[in-house]
Amino acid sequence: MSIYSQRIKELQRLLKKEKLDAVVINRPIEAGFLTGFYLDGCVLLISKTNAWAFVPKMLFEHFKYKVPFVEAVASNDIKAGVIAEIKKYKFKIKKTVFQPETETYVSGMFWKKHGLIEKAGLTACLRLTKKGAELKAIRKACHVAAKAFLVIKSRIKAGRTEISVARELEDIMQAMGATGPSFDLIVAFGANSALPHHETSMRVLKKNEAVLIDYGCIYDFYRSDMTRTFFYGKADTEFKKVYSIVETSQKKAVKALKSGIKAAFIDKTARDLIMDEGYGQYFVHGTGHGVGLEIHEAPTVNSKSKDILKEGMILTVEPGIYLNGKFGVRIEDTLLVKKNGCEILTK
Amino acid sequence: MSIYSQRIKELQRLLKKEKLDAVVINRPIEAGFLTGFYLDGCVLLISKTNAWAFVPKMLFEHFKYKVPFVEAVASNDIKAGVIAEIKKYKFKIKKTVFQPETETYVSGMFWKKHGLIEKAGLTACLRLTKKGAELKAIRKACHVAAKAFLVIKSRIKAGRTEISVARELEDIMQAMGATGPSFDLIVAFGANSALPHHETSMRVLKKNEAVLIDYGCIYDFYRSDMTRTFFYGKADTEFKKVYSIVETSQKKAVKALKSGIKAAFIDKTARDLIMDEGYGQYFVHGTGHGVGLEIHEAPTVNSKSKDILKEGMILTVEPGIYLNGKFGVRIEDTLLVKKNGCEILTK
Repeated sequence: MSIYSQRIKELQRLLKKEKLDAVVINRPIEAGFLTGFYLDGCVLLISKTNAWAFVPKMLFEHFKYKVPFVEAVASNDIKAGVIAEIKKYKFKIKKTVFQPETETYVSGMFWKKHGLIEKAGLTACLRLTKKGAELKAIRKACHVAAKAFLVIKSRIKAGRTEISVARELEDIMQAMGATGPSFDLIVAFGANSALPHHETSMRVLKKNEAVLIDYGCIYDFYRSDMTRTFFYGKADTEFKKVYSIVETSQKKAVKALKSGIKAAFIDKTARDLIMDEGYGQYFVHGTGHGVGLEIHEAPTVNSKSKDILKEGMILTVEPGIYLNGKFGVRIEDTLLVKKNGCEILTK
Repeated sequence: MSIYSQRIKELQRLLKKEKLDAVVINRPIEAGFLTGFYLDGCVLLISKTNAWAFVPKMLFEHFKYKVPFVEAVASNDIKAGVIAEIKKYKFKIKKTVFQPETETYVSGMFWKKHGLIEKAGLTACLRLTKKGAELKAIRKACHVAAKAFLVIKSRIKAGRTEISVARELEDIMQAMGATGPSFDLIVAFGANSALPHHETSMRVLKKNEAVLIDYGCIYDFYRSDMTRTFFYGKADTEFKKVYSIVETSQKKAVKALKSGIKAAFIDKTARDLIMDEGYGQYFVHGTGHGVGLEIHEAPTVNSKSKDILKEGMILTVEPGIYLNGKFGVRIEDTLLVKKNGCEILTK
């Protein structure tokens, strides 16, 4: 049985447990998780015993070829087709659900109008911890990214643009087997590194400037995420001090990671250290986030998070200090939560 | 006055015309259209006379630097901040709106819960036809893509993978000034070309196979979209025949394009010709779509479209015939609708 058939079976077990008849899946990433087919425009209808896919005519042959284990229906009016099928099989409409967190307003309102009800977190629950092929893919994506840094670092010279470095880093990762970058890579020189989401530009590197690279790659649909900061030239005392604080903060938070811990505690661990050093106001974002099919997914690692860490979760720890107009330092790794600790995957 | 200030003013004129007090803008592409700041996480509140941006702390300095003409508020709870501001300024809540087509289900329900009402199409109306800087950017994106094809075509040889061709095409476009590809480029060899949304793979090109390349690039946030199909080696009679039908269909539809025409008529023009030749069942998608900040946007060019073409619209015309297991042919250009005709931008 393919991993996709297994995932559909797991979802069907969840439906039984929750005493639901069926769920509509209307988001490419969720449909892709269940079928391996990630293209936009398909809607799945999963009942306790069956699985149908409603597919635009233009994707029908493609879908049938890639997903032989799901009954595909070619349709020109996908959502109406789903509703007709629900009626045909006499699923109790009050027990047929859509997942609010995965719908657009227009599609969610459509399901609602036809009597379906909200039920959050069914596929999210299956995606929350990673195992088997997922873990293998993430490991590879992390390993490729970490290795690529060693190559690109030696090629970063005064006179190069941020964009040229980003592009070469993508090339290096692709040559190592990645299928693409896991997001718009951030390469930031000098004061640009003080903008946490700097947009990689034609800015040229000069001698004695900070270099921040936030990047990752995709392997078999799964992503990696990591950040490295260094000083090109001779770092001054302030950079050295700030770097050392961020590094200590990141290491401490990583060391605290293990199954059963509150995600908010990881944030507090990283943040307290930076606050104690007097830089609290310059750490302007949460400490981390889950990574998987999406570059940001559950769990959330910030001060408001209610998430509890579990074995098999993949998440980032990425404290940073941003001194506007001067430089920023962020250090980020992707980690696998284990029973009594964690494993750094981006190394 | 910047183009962004002008766009905000145009939106404010629309609010007055529609007798509305204010609108929330909660989608990066719409917020970017109005401010030039496209990063995720900001919400704009535009009233008849003012404009506020609610920005996550981590993006605050970045936003202030790039968008000095909008009053920025750093917030850790963006949507709650917007609601508080609406109350503070005593906008009539029943005259404060959100755009249903731009919201997720969760955020749309949030606005609704707080009394805001639905009003579709405000920013869509401003984005529908292109002028000035927008048109200039699209022209450049189209020109770069068209020029790049001439370079890549001569480099496509037996033994190359689809992925290597896609990657090199991206490089060529970037070297010509593009900031990136406008979507996941489709490079399809042989029978893969019969899948309209083939996922570019490690498939190697052999002598005497069809090559289909659906691609485009981004310039200053605006996109181009075009497809070229050719035969590598000596084309057989069937390929030549199908290619000729698609080419004639595309040319006829392009010739019919002008302001005032129904989009559905363009679809009918392209489709009738293919149907008359006996290949109707193999033309499995609509004839085209608008292009701009998004690769698919208004207008829609298919048999069900209610859109009327207007001067300044940018759209694709892309008929195709897909013979499953054999090959597919699609020819696509991006075009500017004019008063008495159209201009092909991808040449």
